[in-house]
Amino acid sequence: MAKISESTIRRLSKYYRSLLYFDRNGMEMVSSKALAERNGVTPVQVRKDLSCFGHFGTRGLGYNVSQLRREIAKILGLHRNWNVAIIGAGHIGTALISYKEFGEQGFHIVALFDRNPEKIGQIRRRVRVYDIGDLSKIAEEKRIEMAIIAVPAQSAQAVVDAVVTSGIKAILNFAPTNLSVPKDVTLRNVNMAVELEGLSYALVSKELTRS
Amino acid sequence: MAKISESTIRRLSKYYRSLLYFDRNGMEMVSSKALAERNGVTPVQVRKDLSCFGHFGTRGLGYNVSQLRREIAKILGLHRNWNVAIIGAGHIGTALISYKEFGEQGFHIVALFDRNPEKIGQIRRRVRVYDIGDLSKIAEEKRIEMAIIAVPAQSAQAVVDAVVTSGIKAILNFAPTNLSVPKDVTLRNVNMAVELEGLSYALVSKELTRS
Repeated sequence: MAKISESTIRRLSKYYRSLLYFDRNGMEMVSSKALAERNGVTPVQVRKDLSCFGHFGTRGLGYNVSQLRREIAKILGLHRNWNVAIIGAGHIGTALISYKEFGEQGFHIVALFDRNPEKIGQIRRRVRVYDIGDLSKIAEEKRIEMAIIAVPAQSAQAVVDAVVTSGIKAILNFAPTNLSVPKDVTLRNVNMAVELEGLSYALVSKELTRS
Repeated sequence: MAKISESTIRRLSKYYRSLLYFDRNGMEMVSSKALAERNGVTPVQVRKDLSCFGHFGTRGLGYNVSQLRREIAKILGLHRNWNVAIIGAGHIGTALISYKEFGEQGFHIVALFDRNPEKIGQIRRRVRVYDIGDLSKIAEEKRIEMAIIAVPAQSAQAVVDAVVTSGIKAILNFAPTNLSVPKDVTLRNVNMAVELEGLSYALVSKELTRS
């Protein structure tokens, strides 16, 4: 299979949400045009993205909503549950525990980790805070497959190294710093500033084109 | 100017960060290949993305690092400062105040808003919590141009409507719900579950290709 870009996967997640919505509203078929419009892309883009993963839909009829939804769920790994750990019981880490859509998509926060002795043993929104030193043990016991890094930048690499040692192969990083992981570990960075740059771009380009 | 996709802008932000890094490390010139490798895309993609905004670089020599960095800063609106409000003084809102990279890129959190009387008037990490009812007044006084929505899903649309009424044209939404805005307002959604889906995709596709 050719390497699929992060942008494609991101769009696939968006199409998936549209299909959930269409499905809930009783729609049976959907065109690439309708999917495109709801997601701010072209119909050609939708067809190109989907063609990376197989042959879906019927020319002239479009896609069967619930079938395509199930197919995309399978591609994205949303047909099963995932146990997730959050490392760092600060504001971001605590906020993420109760992020409703995680559970809805099968991502279950099963443990928090921190190195602060005052936090260890506490229960935060039904999730226990464990000692970061016990990460390997707990990760195995609780079959944790993903970790979210929500620690300050300066301690992030040490935390990531511990996560890698524990056998977890998928990491979402909220710390605003570049992290190194072995090749068999997938690392994605969430950078809040990048999100705001999408807005500043829009404001600046509107000013430019307003004349 | 042709419509530029959100994916292109997102990649531009990444190239910008690479250029900052190269610049700090004293590099003078950089090839599209080097920029591509650091960002997990192809050199063709880098050249295509940049060509949306003009002619940069010299064939065979590559790009001048500090010049391209400045050009991209201007495209993304990072050559100036932006005043930003956070609506919702909960965990996410509070965590975002001290997100270091915001300030570094020129995004200044100048006000928090909440409707909880107990929170109004408090100072959170040097930023005052204002009554959401005073949004229009404060937005004008403090020249706020962007708002970050960090309230529960069920109150998000009402909050967005108030933001739009206040004259703010750029909104970053953390609430996991679909929001409507007028055409002249730019809305971007941050969906944490989408980020985790990039990981579950990677884990599932590795399992598939491991055989």
